Amino acid sequence: MASRDRTLIIIGGGEDRSGDKVILGEVARRVGAGKLVVTTVAMPDPDGLFEQYERAFRALGVRHVFKLGVNERREATEEAKVRVLEDATGVFFTGGDQMKITSQIGDSLVFQRVHEIYRDGGVVAGTSAGASAMSETMLVEGGQQESFTVGGSTRMAPGLGLIGGVIIDQHFAERGRVGRLVGAVAQNPKNIGVGIDEQTAIVVEGGRSFYVLGSGAVYVIDGTGVGYSNVAEEEANKTLSVHDLHLHVLSQGDRFDLDSRRPARLPEREAKRLPEKQPE
Amino acid sequence: MASRDRTLIIIGGGEDRSGDKVILGEVARRVGAGKLVVTTVAMPDPDGLFEQYERAFRALGVRHVFKLGVNERREATEEAKVRVLEDATGVFFTGGDQMKITSQIGDSLVFQRVHEIYRDGGVVAGTSAGASAMSETMLVEGGQQESFTVGGSTRMAPGLGLIGGVIIDQHFAERGRVGRLVGAVAQNPKNIGVGIDEQTAIVVEGGRSFYVLGSGAVYVIDGTGVGYSNVAEEEANKTLSVHDLHLHVLSQGDRFDLDSRRPARLPEREAKRLPEKQPE
Repeated sequence: MASRDRTLIIIGGGEDRSGDKVILGEVARRVGAGKLVVTTVAMPDPDGLFEQYERAFRALGVRHVFKLGVNERREATEEAKVRVLEDATGVFFTGGDQMKITSQIGDSLVFQRVHEIYRDGGVVAGTSAGASAMSETMLVEGGQQESFTVGGSTRMAPGLGLIGGVIIDQHFAERGRVGRLVGAVAQNPKNIGVGIDEQTAIVVEGGRSFYVLGSGAVYVIDGTGVGYSNVAEEEANKTLSVHDLHLHVLSQGDRFDLDSRRPARLPEREAKRLPEKQPE
Repeated sequence: MASRDRTLIIIGGGEDRSGDKVILGEVARRVGAGKLVVTTVAMPDPDGLFEQYERAFRALGVRHVFKLGVNERREATEEAKVRVLEDATGVFFTGGDQMKITSQIGDSLVFQRVHEIYRDGGVVAGTSAGASAMSETMLVEGGQQESFTVGGSTRMAPGLGLIGGVIIDQHFAERGRVGRLVGAVAQNPKNIGVGIDEQTAIVVEGGRSFYVLGSGAVYVIDGTGVGYSNVAEEEANKTLSVHDLHLHVLSQGDRFDLDSRRPARLPEREAKRLPEKQPE
């Protein structure tokens, strides 16, 4: 059954919460009659944010929507908080600050439960900061609308590790983030860079391949073939040089295999099942 | 003699006109004791713009700096305007609107003289709009900080044609233009996309290879290997999909051969000759 195949829905931010709700609709479809926990751990006291998502998910037919707020790390080990996740089949991470997510729930009982829910075939979704936090190494901050400089402002940190071998960036075209994602890939090309536009998501099925959902693009930067880069050679503040990257620009109708690092078109039958209407 | 090898200096905008003047210094070096004509055709009535460049170039030792203003197309055939270019060994196009450059001087006597100056071993430089106008097909306008949509806002037009086989974009990282340049390349991969950051230039020697000068990066997008793109297939407003682009991020110390489409490091001896100090 599709809904028991573990799924990550990694969203580039700005997803529609009141109109067509194409992306949240996919989360809802996969949660189905199950229990969805929305966690606002990425943002302290996010006034009304949970309620927005609750309204959206209820309108999409999810009957069991619960809130998990974690404002301090010690809460992430409290039995009451862990209990919120009991029997959950879906977890949704809102946006905010990805470092708040990892520093407050990393290696906690709450996180262990999230991991179990995923491992047991659940769906874990995250938008914006909640998207960045999914990977083993996450981009925390870094230059926007500027090229990467060696020793510059780009920072990475250990993420939740729900997906390996990728580095996620979000609000990608909108915030001019190609420079920093290229820089992250150049530092260790074992990671594929995945830059996700707003109103756009990748749906990762079984952990090793994804398809694109939504109105924007997904940029895949593959450093396997890189023959030269100055990322380790140059003094600080030298602008990055990196030769022979592979770049795929994907949109709805495309899929990508993370093991072979190859893009492909979805079979027409599957592509037709995706929502036609594109939000503006 | 190096200064008699035809040279294009294509600048991503925002070049320093009062401090180190790394990029204008290269223009000055190549003009040497010759005559430099600065043309403000890209901008109507650019108050004080010529004077800024005149001051900068004189400070850099260029003794013969002349202004060529063209506010209406008929002026581009006037003998007095053409005469400004007599004996010039360098021409500099300021920024503004690239369509003004091509619509006002394209196929005019003024342009024929610019072409002769270049063909005879002169230097033609241009910044921002003056950079975009250099190529045979130029990007005129298009989405910034958004991904390319088929039938969207990106527009191209015939440029001055001083360099073939490339499409230039400028203010590249600063204005988040990767989407539109990828879209331009996808439309016809015979053109290599060259996106130039501010305070950064490519110096094209002999028409078929360039090296990078300045503090930012140059993004080269090569569509030779593209196996799939939806640019001709999809209805309007579908987000671009294009698989298997080649991407090189170059900075000072790199060169690129336009015929083989291969990047390389400059020989150390040549790299050391470039200005050390990087503007911020």
